[in-house]
Amino acid sequence: MMRNDRICEWARWGRSQHAPRLADRPSLLGYLTEQLGELGATTPPVPVQSVAVSPSRLTDAERRALIDVAGQDRVDCTDAGRAIHSVGKSYRDMLVARGGRLAHVTDAVVYPRGERDVAAILAVAAEHDLAVVPFGGGTSVVGGVEPRAGQHHAVVTFDLKDLDDVRVDATSQLADIGAGAFGPEIEQALSGQGYTLGHMPQSFEFSTFGGWVATRGAGQQSTAYGKIEDIVESVRIATPRGLIATRRVPATATGPSVLQQIVGSEGTLGVITSGSARVRSLPERRRFGAWFLPDWSSAIGFARDLLQTDVRPAVMRLSDPAETRWLLKTGSERRSVVERIGRAYVRRVVRRRGFDPEQICLCILGFEGRADLVRLAHRQARHTANRYRAVGLGASPGRSWERDRFTLPYLRDELMSRCVMVDTLETAATWANVERLYAAVREAIDAAIRTGGTRGAVMAHVSHVYPTGASLYYTFLARQQSGNELPQWQAIKTAATRAILEHGGTLSHHHGVGYEHLPLEAEHGPLATDALRSLKATLDPAALMNPEKLL
Amino acid sequence: MMRNDRICEWARWGRSQHAPRLADRPSLLGYLTEQLGELGATTPPVPVQSVAVSPSRLTDAERRALIDVAGQDRVDCTDAGRAIHSVGKSYRDMLVARGGRLAHVTDAVVYPRGERDVAAILAVAAEHDLAVVPFGGGTSVVGGVEPRAGQHHAVVTFDLKDLDDVRVDATSQLADIGAGAFGPEIEQALSGQGYTLGHMPQSFEFSTFGGWVATRGAGQQSTAYGKIEDIVESVRIATPRGLIATRRVPATATGPSVLQQIVGSEGTLGVITSGSARVRSLPERRRFGAWFLPDWSSAIGFARDLLQTDVRPAVMRLSDPAETRWLLKTGSERRSVVERIGRAYVRRVVRRRGFDPEQICLCILGFEGRADLVRLAHRQARHTANRYRAVGLGASPGRSWERDRFTLPYLRDELMSRCVMVDTLETAATWANVERLYAAVREAIDAAIRTGGTRGAVMAHVSHVYPTGASLYYTFLARQQSGNELPQWQAIKTAATRAILEHGGTLSHHHGVGYEHLPLEAEHGPLATDALRSLKATLDPAALMNPEKLL
Repeated sequence: MMRNDRICEWARWGRSQHAPRLADRPSLLGYLTEQLGELGATTPPVPVQSVAVSPSRLTDAERRALIDVAGQDRVDCTDAGRAIHSVGKSYRDMLVARGGRLAHVTDAVVYPRGERDVAAILAVAAEHDLAVVPFGGGTSVVGGVEPRAGQHHAVVTFDLKDLDDVRVDATSQLADIGAGAFGPEIEQALSGQGYTLGHMPQSFEFSTFGGWVATRGAGQQSTAYGKIEDIVESVRIATPRGLIATRRVPATATGPSVLQQIVGSEGTLGVITSGSARVRSLPERRRFGAWFLPDWSSAIGFARDLLQTDVRPAVMRLSDPAETRWLLKTGSERRSVVERIGRAYVRRVVRRRGFDPEQICLCILGFEGRADLVRLAHRQARHTANRYRAVGLGASPGRSWERDRFTLPYLRDELMSRCVMVDTLETAATWANVERLYAAVREAIDAAIRTGGTRGAVMAHVSHVYPTGASLYYTFLARQQSGNELPQWQAIKTAATRAILEHGGTLSHHHGVGYEHLPLEAEHGPLATDALRSLKATLDPAALMNPEKLL
Repeated sequence: MMRNDRICEWARWGRSQHAPRLADRPSLLGYLTEQLGELGATTPPVPVQSVAVSPSRLTDAERRALIDVAGQDRVDCTDAGRAIHSVGKSYRDMLVARGGRLAHVTDAVVYPRGERDVAAILAVAAEHDLAVVPFGGGTSVVGGVEPRAGQHHAVVTFDLKDLDDVRVDATSQLADIGAGAFGPEIEQALSGQGYTLGHMPQSFEFSTFGGWVATRGAGQQSTAYGKIEDIVESVRIATPRGLIATRRVPATATGPSVLQQIVGSEGTLGVITSGSARVRSLPERRRFGAWFLPDWSSAIGFARDLLQTDVRPAVMRLSDPAETRWLLKTGSERRSVVERIGRAYVRRVVRRRGFDPEQICLCILGFEGRADLVRLAHRQARHTANRYRAVGLGASPGRSWERDRFTLPYLRDELMSRCVMVDTLETAATWANVERLYAAVREAIDAAIRTGGTRGAVMAHVSHVYPTGASLYYTFLARQQSGNELPQWQAIKTAATRAILEHGGTLSHHHGVGYEHLPLEAEHGPLATDALRSLKATLDPAALMNPEKLL
């Protein structure tokens, strides 16, 4: 039977052998205890073998029909295979998975070998009235891969891992990439020929090209490379009514963008099978810089100023005072320079510059590309930093960030094992609006945590920056309320969402909508949402595709 | 009665007092005679007063209803007012207008004062079953503003010139711009505050923000500033079912892009009333460079190489050998340096470098922005040019191009007066495909001209460049076949379109679709076209908006 050994293990992030252990990080543990009170005893997740999974609702005829087109070894109806394809990686998913109680379990996992298989299996699904959920790396944090049956009697999940071709058109600097290709596979194939996609979300190791396109993802270097919707130039999607292949051209003026209707469709219109994406030469030079800024307003001003004077760092991370304090207090056992410089240096900065230690913000910049352009951008950043009274910290904080860039999601598993709620959410705003939105959402989360009666913490950073505005990314933590974990979290999420909408943000900057951010009307209004629904009704008239998501 | 004195005069481009005269350009006249044979006698267009215009089909009740909501002086049912709003600026339009025989005449022109007026007048149109054509500057070259009634008994054209607010949000470097604001108004309002939109299409003086957004236009500096779909960040559109205002945020991941469904909708979904657009600081430095390249392949290689090593000129114009010869032969009376250097210099280049004079290509680059970045980009361009054996020509050809950048459309009027067919069309392709597409379309046009039995000329340039590909812009000329002008032109257009589609181009890079590029299925396939139709059916269920265009 087919297995997917590239996706995260059951009920956790990534691979257990790579997971950092909280026990090895006393300063982090100390910080958490200080913020949240004593943590709970370690409670491991229920192993996948012990999860109670309802039997597959497929009839024998349906199973046989799937096997007929997909192949005997490419239809998995085992409990474990079905369970692992039935939850994403949101806090809610993890609660459910760790507890071993899945409300929605897919009825079969099929592994198409290519686009033709996808189309053929879709036809079987249509014939037998089966709902279809496309599955890339399964790292959705908005419920995108949860198998909801909608009006249908069963669900089939398409695991796309074998649609993993990467072909480079070096002349056009385009790569044709299969939907199921994972981040490391893509970069390996490209770097061998001297290229990079430059798209490295935090989920990079365990997420796929198709997933990025389906959710309008952003990599950590999006400030230079663009979000996936800027990187992708054409796309192919198998819908229940047939294939759409958008034209493979650099730009066009032939009506509303068909490409941009498919990007972000989250599996609700069809199965994205591949796309062509802009690649770039591997950077000649990479260079980090980091600064302390006296407060959040200065940090925002600094970022805005840089972007608006045509400095486009690949990485820009601007931590608010709370996140800066977290970074300074929790890094020591990693020998992070942030930590090593932290105590003494911060004290000196505070004394000499008169910074308020409670207000200091850390800013990390990473430049990459042509050596001369990197030099110029770094110099400009230094000049601008001086104007904002920033204190230079050299390259080490950036290197330290880079080393740890993919490990943070592992920490959540450790924290949840110790009965800590931890989740993130993100939005974006124009520069004129970013400070107001920042404060409103932070206060909403903070108030909701306190209303819940627990201690907690909320921190934020800016990590995707534009000449016209920026993203805002929040992390919040609290002691779990035993037996009330989901409502506790939901209350906070609802409060944050309301604040985002009321203050001119967007429901999502790069995680997508799934079902956690519904209803979409709140973002687009009823009429535009209606238009999106009509798009779905046209391409997927039987509403087979990823029911109850997005629309 | 309301008049629009910002749009082009009847049956011609722009303002007659600014029009260059063929008689003043003997070298151009000589070139044309050499290419096409003796030109015809001068035949002026039929004046607007002499155009036979069918009576307005509006009933008195309908007219009164329009006046009730729009105001007495804001509904124009005069013959001249209706005629001038009934033709765009395509070759076909000009044939029709010059001859004074309009097949389609709008039944009234209304001048809404703002978004609320637009909505109210739309409601009247819906109530009385009137088709609606939005009208900005009326410079469509694809039939976009021609008043087709579709299934309705009459047409009302909305002249949007009074929706011309320009408000700058300097913090976010965004400008909120009314759909009816013309190019010069926008730049004037912005430059007063130190900004530019950087969007200057050839129609700049006579076209509007709303028109650019509706057609996915591109300015001549799009290589640095982006096409309008990259510049616009949010948009407001009054549809027959109500207003849609997309969220004013720098980026979002909330499903398919509502913004990019409205951009390019060409008046078929509703009336775009305003949008927010990214503005940039006025450039600190501007600098031109120009080179002769030995042949078209080298020219394409040079452009590709520059773009793929992160050099992003604002202006890049790469003339093919035929256009280069045209430029060298027709510039003398303008004291263009292209001309002055032309004869002697080209001879020297040919002798010293062994260039084939029939293959030489002119490349003009314009850099603008921060002084240090301009310096770096110019230096890199020089280095790259050397690798392609290019011969430097200094700044003057660029300055000469800039001085004449908005005058070329005037020439068409002069040529048509002398019985010359002249038209342009454009497409785009990936770098791997651009030379093949270039040759195929050129040969198709050339063959179609010759099949038509006349002498003619076809030339092309690249003027919008991307890391992954480029636009191709063709100009073709021939003696008109008297009495057969339209079929003569149509045969050429059809041949070019077929070649574009067969060789992987796009029907339009920045002119839009209108009705001249229908059916849209040829570009997108039946399924994606169906999806676009369903979008229209949702927002405009009575099919009032710009019938028979785009979809």
